[in-house]
Amino acid sequence: MPRSSGPVDSPARLSLISRHLAPDYPLNTPYTVERHPDNIDTSLLPKTQTRALTTDTTPANMSTQPEHPTLLIPGPIEFDDAVLNSMSHYSESHVGPGFVAVFGETLSMLRKLFQTTDPSAQPFVLSGSGTLGWDLVAANLIEPGEDALVLSTGYFGDGFADCLKVYGANVTQISAEPGSRPQLPEIEKALSEKKYKLLTVTHVDTSTGVLSELKNLSELVHRVSPDTLVIVDGVCSVACEEIDFDAWKLDGVVTASQKAIGCPAGLSISMFSGRAIQAFQNRQTPPTSYFASMKNWLAIMQNYEAKKPSYFATPSPQLVRALHTALTQIVAQGVKERFAAHKAASDKIKAAVAALGLKQVAANPDDQAHGMTAIYLPETVKGAELLPKLASRGVVFAGGIHKAIAAKYIRFGHMGVSVLDPSRGHVEKAIKALEEGLSECGYQKA
Amino acid sequence: MPRSSGPVDSPARLSLISRHLAPDYPLNTPYTVERHPDNIDTSLLPKTQTRALTTDTTPANMSTQPEHPTLLIPGPIEFDDAVLNSMSHYSESHVGPGFVAVFGETLSMLRKLFQTTDPSAQPFVLSGSGTLGWDLVAANLIEPGEDALVLSTGYFGDGFADCLKVYGANVTQISAEPGSRPQLPEIEKALSEKKYKLLTVTHVDTSTGVLSELKNLSELVHRVSPDTLVIVDGVCSVACEEIDFDAWKLDGVVTASQKAIGCPAGLSISMFSGRAIQAFQNRQTPPTSYFASMKNWLAIMQNYEAKKPSYFATPSPQLVRALHTALTQIVAQGVKERFAAHKAASDKIKAAVAALGLKQVAANPDDQAHGMTAIYLPETVKGAELLPKLASRGVVFAGGIHKAIAAKYIRFGHMGVSVLDPSRGHVEKAIKALEEGLSECGYQKA
Repeated sequence: MPRSSGPVDSPARLSLISRHLAPDYPLNTPYTVERHPDNIDTSLLPKTQTRALTTDTTPANMSTQPEHPTLLIPGPIEFDDAVLNSMSHYSESHVGPGFVAVFGETLSMLRKLFQTTDPSAQPFVLSGSGTLGWDLVAANLIEPGEDALVLSTGYFGDGFADCLKVYGANVTQISAEPGSRPQLPEIEKALSEKKYKLLTVTHVDTSTGVLSELKNLSELVHRVSPDTLVIVDGVCSVACEEIDFDAWKLDGVVTASQKAIGCPAGLSISMFSGRAIQAFQNRQTPPTSYFASMKNWLAIMQNYEAKKPSYFATPSPQLVRALHTALTQIVAQGVKERFAAHKAASDKIKAAVAALGLKQVAANPDDQAHGMTAIYLPETVKGAELLPKLASRGVVFAGGIHKAIAAKYIRFGHMGVSVLDPSRGHVEKAIKALEEGLSECGYQKA
Repeated sequence: MPRSSGPVDSPARLSLISRHLAPDYPLNTPYTVERHPDNIDTSLLPKTQTRALTTDTTPANMSTQPEHPTLLIPGPIEFDDAVLNSMSHYSESHVGPGFVAVFGETLSMLRKLFQTTDPSAQPFVLSGSGTLGWDLVAANLIEPGEDALVLSTGYFGDGFADCLKVYGANVTQISAEPGSRPQLPEIEKALSEKKYKLLTVTHVDTSTGVLSELKNLSELVHRVSPDTLVIVDGVCSVACEEIDFDAWKLDGVVTASQKAIGCPAGLSISMFSGRAIQAFQNRQTPPTSYFASMKNWLAIMQNYEAKKPSYFATPSPQLVRALHTALTQIVAQGVKERFAAHKAASDKIKAAVAALGLKQVAANPDDQAHGMTAIYLPETVKGAELLPKLASRGVVFAGGIHKAIAAKYIRFGHMGVSVLDPSRGHVEKAIKALEEGLSECGYQKA
């Protein structure tokens, strides 16, 4: 990939390459004239911690993790053993050749997860929560006083709007009733009335389980307001819902490590289009964050992917190694197969929920997420009564968090190994616990 | 601790308490009226992953980690086995009672590490790199147009100044020559000339190994400019250099997980005084960051410490568990004993460096850090030549990163288990490798 050809806004810090060497590894610093030949003696590189990588979706062996309640909330999710083992990798330098190679591969594999082959697209992996992705968008892709159109399908859409406002954007928000999503005609009307720098949409709002439709939405934006950047909050969708970054002409997808990607929490993960990077580079004013500034991170990410050590702030080698393991599994399985597996599990779960006589928060089947299900409780049952009964059966669901309906529903997350590894039996266990728990609460299907 | 009495700037988000329940755990949400009795049935709580906690500083057994090069850079550092094992803790809800208790204890233990018993002091633990601590200060404790005085002893002092500027502060910087630090008379002069909202000082600048003196500095500030907040960048000092938060009247110390605290990278850790929190609460303008906003985090941290589940952005249960294990060990040993052990190891290392006829970047012994040593190379030896020779002996040192002298020195980090667990033999191994490596480069003591 021709990564060195682009116009890189090279910050002064970029040049500060830490050199924790690295046997015979090419130095990458402006402060020394020495350059090593490319004959890297790999025998001197840190030994890789070799642990079995579980890429088979139906392993014969059970998990090696201690017995524990099955976590079926919409993130964090249950982890694959190999991913979890990567978290306790021995300490290594963040600019040493072993870690640099792993980080570089991680960034390259993200391109496959997002289905982008456009070399101008740029992945970022930063230490932080998923929320940091909002700051990355708000501090770099829009300038104070510019307009943003936020489509909200719940708590997290509202949060993205709040974040944009903090950074000085003028936010117009189209919010749907809980359980539904803004419709294309009203979005088209809004786009026609004002020139928006960017539009944001929450692919799956974790508070409602409402799935937004990206393909038609992006087509609409490109037709009606072609300069508007299409930004997706994919925290609860990346790695379980289809996202075709190039084909759908998306400009940004921000997500986190702890949901369908199946890595422990602690990483903000994102992909931006060449057009989005250009918008950042064309800013009239400097980015309004330091830690979330693309000015500080862009060249660092490009260097890591080119396997060159580079420093702005210390990444977490353990979390990045875990992400590397998770992405290796995802790529080995194939992303389309992964999406299909999540859809199949979701269909089964939604059928079971309907069979229990329960309704979903997302009323329209087309609006229902495939990695989680937000389930309305029977009128006679309270979440505070039901959830402990599930917990006593070893199943952890989440309560509601959408302000308007919080006490009326519960959330069942079904992502990653819990649906990809049938031998774990998580889905069946959860459905059975739900049936029995409701029954114990006195509920009987009408 | 009376945490509920303070005037909390309660953001709307605070109320959004996720309830991934949690057998019979008290609900904490405004959306339900149910309240559970306090009879938490702990038999239903997730089982704790029991692994031996190594608090003994001289364990009889060797590390269980695979053989790997000894990482002696000034962070990340080598890890204790128990800390590393905590990283692969099975998945758990970030608002479940097991994790909430661990996070709460972690925050409370930070008070002991910083030696503060003042209930108005407030710890923060956020997902992010150490650099995020600068944003936390710059976005919350100073408003655009206000003045900051930055004392710089190297690369990281300059970075803190850059960050403050991004957030609109007017920065006056006092920079010392590489290897020295700004002196009190010139600081007093600056403080007398202008009213600064805050002063920042890098306790140990990782680029130079220069140690700044905090006690006398803080006394000076409180005498000459009592309203000025005293903010310390303690990334390379917390848990290896004495910091007496209350006695020295500090207003903020920001640090990271991966240095002397001995936890993998990925957490921004900080402590702020009641006076600093008051300065935040008295802002005329809102905080200029979202992810780094105290408005979003303050109540969350207070809730976690009170063992109440609370949500703004998902923390990393694995990293927080590892930090909990690290802090449990630190508190068990006693912080003063820990500081003394680092000083003793540092004295030994600095004597060995002198015996080799080498000079330190920090010329004055009083200005020399105790968790790292920045060593000038002999004129005839280049870092790019020496570092691989150390690596071939299983020792990883870091190159120089201070722009003015980068090629002329190397950095030796000596923090955490590498100095606290003599059975590992890291210090002796490093000194021997340095001797042999220099010799192989043709260096002989004059």
